[in-house]
Amino acid sequence: MAVRQDAGGTPERVDGGPTTWVYLFDQLDKIETERKPKDWEAVRTLLGGKGANLFEMTRIGVPVPPGFTVTTEACNAYLAADRSFPEGMWEQEVEAMRALERASGKRFGDAEDPLLVSCRSGSKFSMPGMMDTVLNIGLNDQAAQGLAKTTGDPRFVFDAYRRLVQMFGCVVMGMPDEPFEAVIEEVKAERGVHGDDELDADEWQRVTERFKKLFRGFTGNDFPQDPFEQLELATRAVFNSWFGKRAVDYRNATNIRHDLGTAVSIQVVVFGNMGEDSGTGVAFTRNPVDGTHEIYGDYLMNAQGEDVVAGIRNTKAIKDLALEMPDVYAEFAAICERLETHFKDMQDVEFTIERGKLWMLQTRNGKRTARAAIAIAVDMADTGLIDKREALVRVTPEQVDMLLHPQFSDVVKAEAAERGERLVEKAVNASPGAAVGRVVFDADTAEAWGKRGEAVIMVRPETRPDDVHGMIAAKGILTSRGGATSHAAVVARQFGVPAVCGADALRISVDRQQMSVERPDGVITVNEGEWISIDGGTGEVYLGELATHAPDFEREEHLRTLLVWADEVRRLGVWTNADYPRDAQRARGFGAEGIGLCRTEHMFFEEERLPVVQEMIMARNRERRVDALKRLLPMQRSDFEGLFRAMDGRPVIVRLLDPPLHEFLPAYEDLLQELADLKVRLQHFHTLSEIDEALTKVREKEDLLARVGELRESNPMLGLRGVRLGVMLPEVTEMQVRAIMEAASRVVQDGTAVHPEIMVPLTSDLGEFKVMAEIIHRIGSAVEKETGVTVPYKVGTMIEVPRAALTAGAIAAEAEFFSFGTNDLTQTTYGLSRDDAEAKFLIPYVEQGVIEENPFQHLDRSGVGRLIEIAVTEGRAERPDLHVGICGEHGGDPKSIEFCHMTGLDYVSCSPYRVPVARLAAAQAAIWHPET
Amino acid sequence: MAVRQDAGGTPERVDGGPTTWVYLFDQLDKIETERKPKDWEAVRTLLGGKGANLFEMTRIGVPVPPGFTVTTEACNAYLAADRSFPEGMWEQEVEAMRALERASGKRFGDAEDPLLVSCRSGSKFSMPGMMDTVLNIGLNDQAAQGLAKTTGDPRFVFDAYRRLVQMFGCVVMGMPDEPFEAVIEEVKAERGVHGDDELDADEWQRVTERFKKLFRGFTGNDFPQDPFEQLELATRAVFNSWFGKRAVDYRNATNIRHDLGTAVSIQVVVFGNMGEDSGTGVAFTRNPVDGTHEIYGDYLMNAQGEDVVAGIRNTKAIKDLALEMPDVYAEFAAICERLETHFKDMQDVEFTIERGKLWMLQTRNGKRTARAAIAIAVDMADTGLIDKREALVRVTPEQVDMLLHPQFSDVVKAEAAERGERLVEKAVNASPGAAVGRVVFDADTAEAWGKRGEAVIMVRPETRPDDVHGMIAAKGILTSRGGATSHAAVVARQFGVPAVCGADALRISVDRQQMSVERPDGVITVNEGEWISIDGGTGEVYLGELATHAPDFEREEHLRTLLVWADEVRRLGVWTNADYPRDAQRARGFGAEGIGLCRTEHMFFEEERLPVVQEMIMARNRERRVDALKRLLPMQRSDFEGLFRAMDGRPVIVRLLDPPLHEFLPAYEDLLQELADLKVRLQHFHTLSEIDEALTKVREKEDLLARVGELRESNPMLGLRGVRLGVMLPEVTEMQVRAIMEAASRVVQDGTAVHPEIMVPLTSDLGEFKVMAEIIHRIGSAVEKETGVTVPYKVGTMIEVPRAALTAGAIAAEAEFFSFGTNDLTQTTYGLSRDDAEAKFLIPYVEQGVIEENPFQHLDRSGVGRLIEIAVTEGRAERPDLHVGICGEHGGDPKSIEFCHMTGLDYVSCSPYRVPVARLAAAQAAIWHPET
Repeated sequence: MAVRQDAGGTPERVDGGPTTWVYLFDQLDKIETERKPKDWEAVRTLLGGKGANLFEMTRIGVPVPPGFTVTTEACNAYLAADRSFPEGMWEQEVEAMRALERASGKRFGDAEDPLLVSCRSGSKFSMPGMMDTVLNIGLNDQAAQGLAKTTGDPRFVFDAYRRLVQMFGCVVMGMPDEPFEAVIEEVKAERGVHGDDELDADEWQRVTERFKKLFRGFTGNDFPQDPFEQLELATRAVFNSWFGKRAVDYRNATNIRHDLGTAVSIQVVVFGNMGEDSGTGVAFTRNPVDGTHEIYGDYLMNAQGEDVVAGIRNTKAIKDLALEMPDVYAEFAAICERLETHFKDMQDVEFTIERGKLWMLQTRNGKRTARAAIAIAVDMADTGLIDKREALVRVTPEQVDMLLHPQFSDVVKAEAAERGERLVEKAVNASPGAAVGRVVFDADTAEAWGKRGEAVIMVRPETRPDDVHGMIAAKGILTSRGGATSHAAVVARQFGVPAVCGADALRISVDRQQMSVERPDGVITVNEGEWISIDGGTGEVYLGELATHAPDFEREEHLRTLLVWADEVRRLGVWTNADYPRDAQRARGFGAEGIGLCRTEHMFFEEERLPVVQEMIMARNRERRVDALKRLLPMQRSDFEGLFRAMDGRPVIVRLLDPPLHEFLPAYEDLLQELADLKVRLQHFHTLSEIDEALTKVREKEDLLARVGELRESNPMLGLRGVRLGVMLPEVTEMQVRAIMEAASRVVQDGTAVHPEIMVPLTSDLGEFKVMAEIIHRIGSAVEKETGVTVPYKVGTMIEVPRAALTAGAIAAEAEFFSFGTNDLTQTTYGLSRDDAEAKFLIPYVEQGVIEENPFQHLDRSGVGRLIEIAVTEGRAERPDLHVGICGEHGGDPKSIEFCHMTGLDYVSCSPYRVPVARLAAAQAAIWHPET
Repeated sequence: MAVRQDAGGTPERVDGGPTTWVYLFDQLDKIETERKPKDWEAVRTLLGGKGANLFEMTRIGVPVPPGFTVTTEACNAYLAADRSFPEGMWEQEVEAMRALERASGKRFGDAEDPLLVSCRSGSKFSMPGMMDTVLNIGLNDQAAQGLAKTTGDPRFVFDAYRRLVQMFGCVVMGMPDEPFEAVIEEVKAERGVHGDDELDADEWQRVTERFKKLFRGFTGNDFPQDPFEQLELATRAVFNSWFGKRAVDYRNATNIRHDLGTAVSIQVVVFGNMGEDSGTGVAFTRNPVDGTHEIYGDYLMNAQGEDVVAGIRNTKAIKDLALEMPDVYAEFAAICERLETHFKDMQDVEFTIERGKLWMLQTRNGKRTARAAIAIAVDMADTGLIDKREALVRVTPEQVDMLLHPQFSDVVKAEAAERGERLVEKAVNASPGAAVGRVVFDADTAEAWGKRGEAVIMVRPETRPDDVHGMIAAKGILTSRGGATSHAAVVARQFGVPAVCGADALRISVDRQQMSVERPDGVITVNEGEWISIDGGTGEVYLGELATHAPDFEREEHLRTLLVWADEVRRLGVWTNADYPRDAQRARGFGAEGIGLCRTEHMFFEEERLPVVQEMIMARNRERRVDALKRLLPMQRSDFEGLFRAMDGRPVIVRLLDPPLHEFLPAYEDLLQELADLKVRLQHFHTLSEIDEALTKVREKEDLLARVGELRESNPMLGLRGVRLGVMLPEVTEMQVRAIMEAASRVVQDGTAVHPEIMVPLTSDLGEFKVMAEIIHRIGSAVEKETGVTVPYKVGTMIEVPRAALTAGAIAAEAEFFSFGTNDLTQTTYGLSRDDAEAKFLIPYVEQGVIEENPFQHLDRSGVGRLIEIAVTEGRAERPDLHVGICGEHGGDPKSIEFCHMTGLDYVSCSPYRVPVARLAAAQAAIWHPET
């Protein structure tokens, strides 16, 4: 069972006989004999999903109203033959009706006690846009009169009849629904009533007559009185709906094959509204909210199915049925258990009680919350109903993710949206999770309010390194500029702070401490201190405080069990991206086996370091730079010490300085503005000392501006950063390597194992890597000599530009490991900058169907993936024990993790909160692709 | 002969005998018998280049002083055996000396009439850093006395002896030269004279004695009196010098193999200073400046070789020798002709006349100017001395380039540098050619001065679209920022205006109309109107007016002939990048066969269009945008009309709009500044109307600023440009396609054939291309219907991001042609921005040997080239007739053109001025790689 759904071909008749187009629900054996379907999927392909389940229920003895299914094969033959039924099909359908007559003891079109049937479409995959259901086929003028007499309930009969005419008109003949509804409204108005239930038998009969007139007016023909004509037209309508525009669009959008076709299921109608011993209901075989093993649902006595869902009458909880009809309930409960055991999954069932007799109308796998999905899968595996591998594929990685972040429920959000409180519908979902807090517009306020215990959402056009103290103090971050790799997004994910970025509908005025959004109904303005709620998982922003529900990994026992099973199955290692000891600690709690990426520059942004870093950058000569670096050394060393201790012997990959230096300095334009302001103020000073002081400031600012100007780049992403910095400023590399190796020595001396791996960023040529490797080994040896401690370490490189992948064979001659930086690799392979691209064309592209997926969300297999394959293959050819992983954001994306497994990577590395997700995704990949 | 030099292995003895380590100059036959060398290259490998030529001259009967060569094989054996001579070598060398004694009738070390020999190193390739020459080996105290008597010229003898001691000390024993020179200075001071020629025999003898003391002091041994000891030490010194540091470095830098070894040539010394019937000279067999077929050189009677080159005495033109010694001249002229015929190239010879007897000391292929190289190659092929293919590989593409741009001679530049007038030594050589003009700092002045006939050099920190009118009017362009793809560079190359960019040593103050450069000796300031000279081929800038020499393609008949031959040989087409009819015209004159790239955006920058383009960009809705586009349509149409007419039926590839829209608007910071200024000025207005007017301006500026702000991108190179613009603003695409197709229809109606090919820029996914192709075909059909004219056109795409190459198979299903944009492809493959990278790390990388070549200069074969190969192979697999070319700057680089040929591209496209270069390079590629 542990395979993904795949649309195989229709199982054809293999025993040599003429094609059977129609099967009765109890003829599953016949299908097996005639067609030898290779698996259950093949049966579903033939009968449609809903139909196949009815056959299966029938076979295992569940009481299902009799019926039959016209196969998808018949549909395809019909469509292929210019919409004419294949030979013998109609005759078989008529024959099947006769069988239903025999089984029910009623006759189709009978004037006294007519057999009524429903007609439903059903393809392998549930598909909106296809014809759904026509009920009560078989009613006509004569039968209605007869039935009214037989049942003594003419109101029920004419209500049923008018429903047939309406459904037949709309669904089969393509009439609009409005004229029908208008007639009902008119009749109610004539009668002076408001509810449908206030209309009596005569009035429903009048409605029926007027419906028939409408029908004639629209179609030019009388409503067909011949039940078989009704049946034939309904059958054709279902077939035709397969190529209805909405169905085709849906299939195109969801990659469902167009040659599957739809089946038609005809079933005897049973009535839950035949008195107080009749009823109808829907139920789940387990609690779909938390997974508890209990029947969970609603029912209504003397009612039709749609009454339960319509919410007009108050439904009763399913447990009441145990009191009201204990025998029926006992039978129902046993059936639920049996269906679950049979289908090996929690079922969502519909049932009707007709005059005390229980009928099961439908069963299907039930929808459930993430928590329930996990609980049910683990419980079913624990009790042996399914095996562990099956449990692992029952849960989606997204469901795991949901359990790890506070969430707004869809209901809460829908309600808020209805109240008009949705400010932003879709910005960049930069860091998942729900956050609620009061709006502040600068980092200092965020920090101050945060320290006094306020929940704040920090709102900025975009963030910069000197905003980090505020971002850490905030519950959530909201920006109007920048995408999912913007500073705000990266920092937010790092700290697990929910963030919505690039919400360009917002006008943020930091000066006025205000943000506003223009809407058709006017401008909404939010001031400092007002509450908002942001959903970092979807990119939505709401006014006010939305209710959240919060997770606790330690207490998620089902999840923890499932992930232990995942660990048994997966081949891929799961590492984490962590820059601080607290991140490392958290990731270990989530199960991380190593650090795949420690971004040393994040340490540079820390409050007490930034001034020293800036001094280093401003240094006009090597001596001054080395001096500043000397002061940075002990700080970096203590960072690494903490990290190594936290990881307790697990491998730690430290990436050398990556970003362009100007990121550590104020923005050029800000400086320009400040300088302009200073100069204006200068005009207002009078005393010499005032002027002198101001002039000194101006000069300082000018110096800073000049340096920032020098460091400015037209495309900073493609500028002096990564290994290029390391080669051009070897003293920075030396300091970092020394800090790493000294820290490692200290930890080793304390008796803790350390496995540092030093990673060179942005390599594009072996020559660059060689220069860095020389420095690293030189400093490594020097530290070893100084400390007398031998620390085994590795030297490797990021593969994050296409050329590194294309020349990976050469690079692997010197590098001991590769780590794919798929953010940059995607950017350079496509030639786009995510910050600029995502809002401006990438998301529109996906929406307009220009491209299938956002390559930053799921790794692009044909371009980026091909480069990865080249690099892995050629790297390993050169160095068979080359250790290869991924540390880009795709390392936390299940679909990309699947690719990493298929490509033979050794591990994926992702942010701490994605570690559990990756553990499951890696296990699923191993299950789906056992060969790799 | 038409093959490139390749270092094959030493030809070993194949006839079974013991190795011969030493060959006399007249034993070429013996070498051929013993070793059967496969070609002349193999002989050069064995004997070194210089040695091989001496053997060859001897064989053809040219009078060469007798001598012998110790082979490179001996050298390698010596080095392999821890620096001991291989068995039998020394004995063979001594035996060879005996043969020289027999041939000369003198004895080595003889007290009366000693045989003197020179000892020279000689490897296959001429190589600085190896031991060069020791003359006069064989002189010692006794021989000197004897020789003085025999010649009656003791001054000559002791001058020769002291030279031997000095050369032997410096070259063989590694002594510094300074102490020797100091002795001479001392002796001259004692004597009170200034010139060496004023010292007499006694003084030279004194000098010799003091040299011998120096020798003893430095080496601990007496200067060897045994001539054979001198010979042995000199032989060892030559061998050892093969692994001298400078020689190794040189080989590493020039990719010469380390296992070639060096030969040692020993030759009888002849003297040109033995009286008035002796002399010496150097000559070329053709004029090395213009290639005229005449002997060209200088000589001196009664002089030594070095006197001719030292320039102490005035030399005579070689023709005077015909008068002075007609017999000798006649013999010499015949030898020159013979050598040229034999070596099939212009020769650079050295000769000595010893007492009326002519000796040829050396012959080698002579260096020559570009013009001479071409003239000689064409003439030799015309007269049948070489074939056309050989003529084609004799000329380098760089030599062709030199003929197409005004140039400064090296001498002119060296003199200026010596005068301290070199302002910039090495900035980006952005657009080749020499330019001299007066400095101006803004476009308007450049235009105004240019219109009144002034030669101006436009100097800017960087240029923008609104500078173009000034750039066109300037003779040269100089910027302090930006690299070889900066706006300044691209525009400059486009118009063939020489440019030096990114000269960051310059401080340019546009405000003060001044630029300055800081130097150790102070600051040099250049004001508006002062003259400078820039060399766009090397990136140099000089103060003042340097003399240039200018080209005229029409009059370069030899070149035109050569290029016609190139056209007969090459397989690659040569197209051009041209945006305007005048460029197209020029390129056709140079031989372009089509337009490979017309950048439509350049038309947008034209003065009368820019405001309309800006209006289009500022449009807040589709309607306004379409309105502006309607006004652009006729302008674009007339551009294309001109282009199509100019190309007269040749294919024209028009690329749709590529750059990000903000490039057409003022810079954000400029606007910020202007706005700040406006606001300050606002405070000084008093009347309401003044304030009102100013406020309106502020509001306009603010609007513009807002729009520019919206369009700003953090990495514009990777942003909303190319196909992305085309997809997001389909109305722009529609206008451009309409302009192209309407123009084509008009030209066709006039009876001229047109082959437009519409090219989509920056495609990274088939989906994008499909959207564009749909628009193009839709508009194409519409125009066809409207005009009733059918114009055959093609639709294709740039391949300029790695993903396009990696998915080329899919893209080729829809695209009819590919054009590799290797500028962007290099940038994205490496993940670098040329503007940011070149000065900051790429050029330093090359200088420091981190990488071998600047990939923007020569196409990177292992990364970018591999992508090209993938795209060509997979594109052609999908569409066998896929037409493939290159339009990046590499299309004009010979080394890259070679790769294009090897990869099977159909054509290269380059700027008009590179077309002749490309024609030759393509022919050479075809000659070197006949298989592709």
